Order: sequence, then structure tokens, then C-alpha cells
Amino acid sequence: MAQVDELLSRELKVLLRIRDTEERCLSIRICIELHSSAGSSHKKDLVVRMTDDTDPYFLYNLVISEEDFQSLKIQQGLLVDFSAFPQKFIDLLCQCSQEENKEVPRFLLQLSSSASLLSGSPAQLDVIETNPFKHLTHLSLRFLPATDMEVKSYLANCLRCVKEEKNVLKKTLSKTEEDLTRQLIFTQQ
Amino acid sequence: MAQVDELLSRELKVLLRIRDTEERCLSIRICIELHSSAGSSHKKDLVVRMTDDTDPYFLYNLVISEEDFQSLKIQQGLLVDFSAFPQKFIDLLCQCSQEENKEVPRFLLQLSSSASLLSGSPAQLDVIETNPFKHLTHLSLRFLPATDMEVKSYLANCLRCVKEEKNVLKKTLSKTEEDLTRQLIFTQQ
Repeated sequence: MAQVDELLSRELKVLLRIRDTEERCLSIRICIELHSSAGSSHKKDLVVRMTDDTDPYFLYNLVISEEDFQSLKIQQGLLVDFSAFPQKFIDLLCQCSQEENKEVPRFLLQLSSSASLLSGSPAQLDVIETNPFKHLTHLSLRFLPATDMEVKSYLANCLRCVKEEKNVLKKTLSKTEEDLTRQLIFTQQ
Repeated sequence: MAQVDELLSRELKVLLRIRDTEERCLSIRICIELHSSAGSSHKKDLVVRMTDDTDPYFLYNLVISEEDFQSLKIQQGLLVDFSAFPQKFIDLLCQCSQEENKEVPRFLLQLSSSASLLSGSPAQLDVIETNPFKHLTHLSLRFLPATDMEVKSYLANCLRCVKEEKNVLKKTLSKTEEDLTRQLIFTQQ
């Protein structure tokens, strides 16, 4: 069994750009997990998921293995190694989050695609810093839209979690009613 | 937009038979809906769904149009018409439900498949009456396993419902706490 460590699950504002013609703001949830396979291989994958809390079919995935990371590092001139990368990525996302309500954010997340979202085309997530001189892309990640099978398994997992949360609420409700009713009776005596 | 009327959604025990080798009891939910298309066609479809509350991937579908029903009627020697069929089917399911805890049920639901469930093979649901003389099949319906796309849309719908139920519980909990705390303070004064 693989071990899964959730490093981040956070709703963030992104600037959506489709074919340089459409531009609008969107809230997406970015979830970052580290998957470590058991056994002697010690293979680690960084799994990044983009979802939309209001649209159950919205699911984009990116899996970065240690080997993939070497190419990414060279391509984008990164100076950190695989183990330090997740935290750096999270720091960048937090910087964007802190700026997301500003009129002119210094850091912003841009999601771009050559076709409308969920049409089956990949989507690119860029962390962009804007200074008085130019736009600087700190990181650029390419996500693939999930297959029906992946969406199915993601939704089954969401359903399991929401059902659990619902059950916890149900128990809390009946316990609260019980406790307070008991206190009420006690006080009335 | 099509109109959907839910006629039944009920958990029922079925006797599962795989390739005449495996035989065990299973709880499945049978949901019966009548879908009426809008516009001048007035096309009606009876949609029957088998799901398993404990397995999000378990989904079998059967859609019976008015034309399909004519073949079914001839094949199985049914004496009711399309409009009366859903209620007759529900009555049969209820008879099975009433007998499901008996050691020798007179009516039982049997689900059979030539391969293990969810392997992609169709499954046949039979309503069987057992009298001292023989087994009588009252109805035999052939279900198709859902595609990934259908499971995806079914799960998205489940998720929407459970989220709504969770929100109702959340509101009830905070209202209950508020009400009872107010009463408690009032009584203590």
C-alpha cells in the first residue's frame, strides 16, 4: 500500500484565461499530496489536484515523480531539489493567496488553456509575479483533465468523506439535544 | 427538460448467483423512476437503478421505453400495460421485502450474472415465487452495468444530496444549540 501525506488542500483564486479571448476569476481548490510507495523502491510522487467545490466534474491532475522533477528543474531553472520543492510550491501558493483580494496583486495564479475547461485539453497553472517592470513566471505546471474513471474514484472518495462528516454532525446533534435537555430539566427542578 | 418522478427507492435483500457456483445474500437499493420528456412527444421511460449503499461503484441500469415494454410484455406474458406496470413491479418488490427475513421466503429477488458483479457483464433480476410444487418467475429484468460516465454522474448526484443533508444537519445543530441555550439561560434566571 502506498502512503499518502496531504500537504495542502486550499481554495484559491485563479485568473482563468482561455485562448487569450476569455478572462475571468475562478475559485479552485488545490490539493497537494506526497505519495510514497511501500517496499524497497521508496518511489515518491508529488500529486497535485485541482478541483472546484461547486462543480463535481472539475478535476485536473498532475503527477510529478522524482525523474519528472529533474526535467522540470532543468526546464524552469529551479534551484531546489525534489524534497524541498513541495514546500516552495506551497509558499508560492500562500503568497498568491495573501494577495488575492488586492486590486493589483503582486503574485497571482493564472490558469490557461487552449480550449474551454473540461473540454479535454490540458491546462497550465502559472505562478506569476508582476513588478513595475515585467511579469515573472516563478513556476509553470501542466495539468491533465481527469478521465471518467479518475473522476469516478475522486467522487467516490468525496462521497465517503461527506458521509462521514454527516454522521459526525448527526451524532453531535443528538448528543447536544440530549445534554442540553438534561441540563434544562435539571435547572427547572 | 425531462420530468423525473421517483416511484421507489428502497434497500432490498437479493440472492446473488454467479455462474451457478457462488450464492450469497446481498443488500441492494432499487430505485424506480418515471422519466417523461417535455414537448409534444410525451415519451415516457421507466428507469430502474440498482445500487449498493456501501459500494459507490455498484450501479446497474435498466431503461424501459413504451416500445421496449411491448416486447417485454409479449416475451414474459404480462397482462398489464405500460402505465400499470411500475406499480405492479413495486408490489412484487414489496412482497419480496415482506418475506426477506423468513427462512423459506415465498417471494424472493434473485440477481444472477454469468461473471462476477461489476466485471462488465449484464445482470438479471428475477422475482421468484416458490410454492410447494415449483419456482415461478413473475418477472425477469436484464440490467446493464453502468459506464464510467454514468457512475460519475450518479456519484455527483449522490454527493450533491449528501452535501445538502449535511448542511441541513449543520443548521439544525446550530439552531438546537441556540434554542436550548436560550431556554437554559431563561430558566436559570
